[in-house]
This record gives sequence, structure tokens and C-alpha cells, in this order.
Amino acid sequence: MIRVNLIGYGNIGVHLARAFQRASEVELQRIWVRKLPEPTDHLFTTTFADWPAADIDIICVADKAIAEIVSQKPDTARLTVHTAGSVSVDALSTFSNRGVLYPLQTFSKNKAVDFTQVPFCLETALAADYALLQQLAQIISPKTYPVSSLQRKQLHLSAVFVCNFVNHMYRIGEEICAENQLPYEILQPLIAETAEKIKHLPPSQAQTGPAIRFDQPTIDAHLQLLNPGPYAEIYQQLTLSIQAHVQKL
Amino acid sequence: MIRVNLIGYGNIGVHLARAFQRASEVELQRIWVRKLPEPTDHLFTTTFADWPAADIDIICVADKAIAEIVSQKPDTARLTVHTAGSVSVDALSTFSNRGVLYPLQTFSKNKAVDFTQVPFCLETALAADYALLQQLAQIISPKTYPVSSLQRKQLHLSAVFVCNFVNHMYRIGEEICAENQLPYEILQPLIAETAEKIKHLPPSQAQTGPAIRFDQPTIDAHLQLLNPGPYAEIYQQLTLSIQAHVQKL
Repeated sequence: MIRVNLIGYGNIGVHLARAFQRASEVELQRIWVRKLPEPTDHLFTTTFADWPAADIDIICVADKAIAEIVSQKPDTARLTVHTAGSVSVDALSTFSNRGVLYPLQTFSKNKAVDFTQVPFCLETALAADYALLQQLAQIISPKTYPVSSLQRKQLHLSAVFVCNFVNHMYRIGEEICAENQLPYEILQPLIAETAEKIKHLPPSQAQTGPAIRFDQPTIDAHLQLLNPGPYAEIYQQLTLSIQAHVQKL
Repeated sequence: MIRVNLIGYGNIGVHLARAFQRASEVELQRIWVRKLPEPTDHLFTTTFADWPAADIDIICVADKAIAEIVSQKPDTARLTVHTAGSVSVDALSTFSNRGVLYPLQTFSKNKAVDFTQVPFCLETALAADYALLQQLAQIISPKTYPVSSLQRKQLHLSAVFVCNFVNHMYRIGEEICAENQLPYEILQPLIAETAEKIKHLPPSQAQTGPAIRFDQPTIDAHLQLLNPGPYAEIYQQLTLSIQAHVQKL
């Protein structure tokens, strides 16, 4: 049985709490929150005064709140970890046994998460602590990876491209459709297939479209449709970036 | 029974041919190709000399080859259409009965296509021809939409954003992983969930990440990781574009 406390109950905390409560090998003891949820129950607390000892304390607050938590939370757990993609394990340096449990996924409070599909990136400052962290992670997901703080920063950066920036591309598509009285659903199958394709083909080999074909008449026509407007420059820049890859070959 | 000829046997032609051959309501009569495939069969021809009359001739060659086909193909079909996203129906103006059958999907020759999931954008110069084109399209897909030439151009432009540019984002993620000894598969669940999420939530409401949180320390850290390099400017520009949306609200 692994005894766990959570500090924070945002997008990640909510889903971790649910997963731990379902797992018979984990005892979720306490959840620290800034403000008690309504309705609340015995799990929640707003103070560290009666903080129970645990095997692992998991800090899953917003990145910028981690320092404040570090200054308040007692060092009563065998291991203290945070869940942030872009924060070094050294942010927890007041805890002798520290680490990171970073689930690489995009979370929404109102959408269930299938943790068995989520890769967990694990790091501990001391090699001896790794097995415990891995044991906890593997209770909720078969996909665990040892990832150093530097690697994790780079991974978080990749995630900005393949998730946040990708969603912005979807949004631009949505806007163009709306402005032209086209239902957005018409783009859905293309979006799904584009994501599906790269399960079998590396993105470097899956590129299609006017940029990679150096189809200048189509590129010019698109730029004309976009000009003036906020997206012409993005179109231009991404087209050149796709073409730069081809010239490198 | 709808009699069909194909002109062109590239990514779209191959998949249309397979779908028509499986459909009992369609008779695929002839496929014009520049060079006979090996092994070939009676379906294929490199000449328009003995071109059979048909209900619909479908021109599915590369955009820039359409004009050449138009100058050669006899006007023996009840209706002649092309399949190009960014070419006006007027490119076929030598045919009195003309139209467009644009499947909005990304095709790879070696990957099977489930046409029942592909939206077909339909247009005919004469309203009287629309029913025939819709009848053919609905044999292979339940999703057909009337889309004008101008709308289709805008839709093709959207597709560049949600497919081609999205794939480039995947590629940048792939590169960052490779440079940091991280397996690319680690990004796959995030990519799948990002595409899945917007089936239920409009992209305008699904945005996450440091840009929309105006999390400048993380943005600065990412730019530092990217500098010097080809992607710092893309990161900067997309971040500003995401933030511009927020300020509009």
C-alpha cells in the first residue's frame, strides 16, 4: 500500500485523486487546497498543521505556486514530487527526497482521463527513490519513462508545439470556416486522420500540401485570401519552415 | 448504374477507383494515366482516342495538370468534374456541364481510406447537374456538402492550417525529442487527445498552455531553449497570435 497526499486540486490533481481512489494499492490520505470545495469531505484541508506522514507527497499546483508550497509543506513524506513539465526537480531542494511525476497529457476538469494512455515522466534526485515513484506511477499507467529535468523541459516545449500550437491551428481553421458559412464539423475527419497518420508514419514523412510541393500559385492564392489579416504572416512563416526541411535533404 | 471514367491515378484516383469498384451502383469504365501501371489491365489507357461516353468524368490529376487535361479530354460525359480543393469550377469552362467533387481528406497511396468518413464538397455550374453528382458521392460517403468555388478555396486554406501546418508542428516536436534522446512515441497520446478533444469542445475553448496563461517565465524559458534555431520565431509568433485572441474577448 502506498500512502499518498496531494497538494493542489486543479486539472491534474482532480484526475490523480480519482485514479488513486480507484486503485486498491494506493491510500489517498489528504488533499491540500487553497479553498475547500463544496461539498467538501474529510479528505480536504486548507492547512498543513495536521499534515499526515506519507510515502509520497505530490505537489500539483500551478507552476508559479510551487515555491510558496515548498516554503509551507512539512518534510514528512518519504518522497516529495511535483507534476510540472517545465520546473526543475531542484525547485524542491528543501526536501532531501525529491522528484518529479510529470503526466504528459492535456487535461480538462470536465473530461475523464484514461491514465492507462498517459505517459508518466519520472525523475528522482536520489537514485534510491526511483523505484517507489515508478511503483506508484505504474499502478495507474503502464507507460513510465525516466526523464531528466533538462529532457523534461525540452519535452514540455515539444508539447507546446504538438498540443497548444496545434490547437491554435485548429482554431484558425474554425475561424476561416465560420467566416465563410462552412460548418466546422467538415474539418473533423481531416483533423482526426492527420493525427492518426503519424501513429504509423513519422511526421517528417507525412508532410503534404502546397508548401512541400513548392506549389507557389496555390501559396500565393492562399496569401491573397489571408491578406490583410492576422494569419498571413503565420502562413508565410510555416510554409518557409516546411520548405527549409526539404532543402536540407 | 452511374458510369464513371477517371482521369488520373494519383493519391485521390487510386482511392476513388477502389471505392467505385466495390460499389455495385457504379461502373468504372476507364482510367486515363500518363504511364500505364505494371501490371496493367483493360481499365487503363494513355489516350483519349477511344474514350467511352460516361455519366461522370472525374479529373483527379495534379492541380497544375488540369488545364492540359481540359484541352485534350473530349466532352462526351454528361458531367465533367475535378477533385481539386483550390481550383475554381471555371477551370473546366470548356465543358458545358461541369462541377467539382472535392474529398476533404489527406490521402496516402499506401494507406486505405474509409470514404464513409470523408466529407465530399460538391459544386456544379448548372443546378440541374447537382443531383447526379450528389447521387455518385453518396454511394461512397454519407457526408456531402454543397460548397461554392469561393468557399472551397477557403476550406482548402483551412485544411492547410489543420492538416499541413499541424503536421509540421508534429515534426518540430519529433525533432526536439530526437535531439534530446526522447522516444517520439511519448508524444503520441498527447497528439491523439488534442485532436480528440475538439470533437466535443470548439478549439477556441480548448486552448491550453503557457501562451493563453500569459505565463511569461515559461515562454521565456522556451525561447531560450529554442535560441538560436529555426523555431524560436515560430514559437514567438504563435504565442502572440494565441494571446491576441484572448485580448479580443
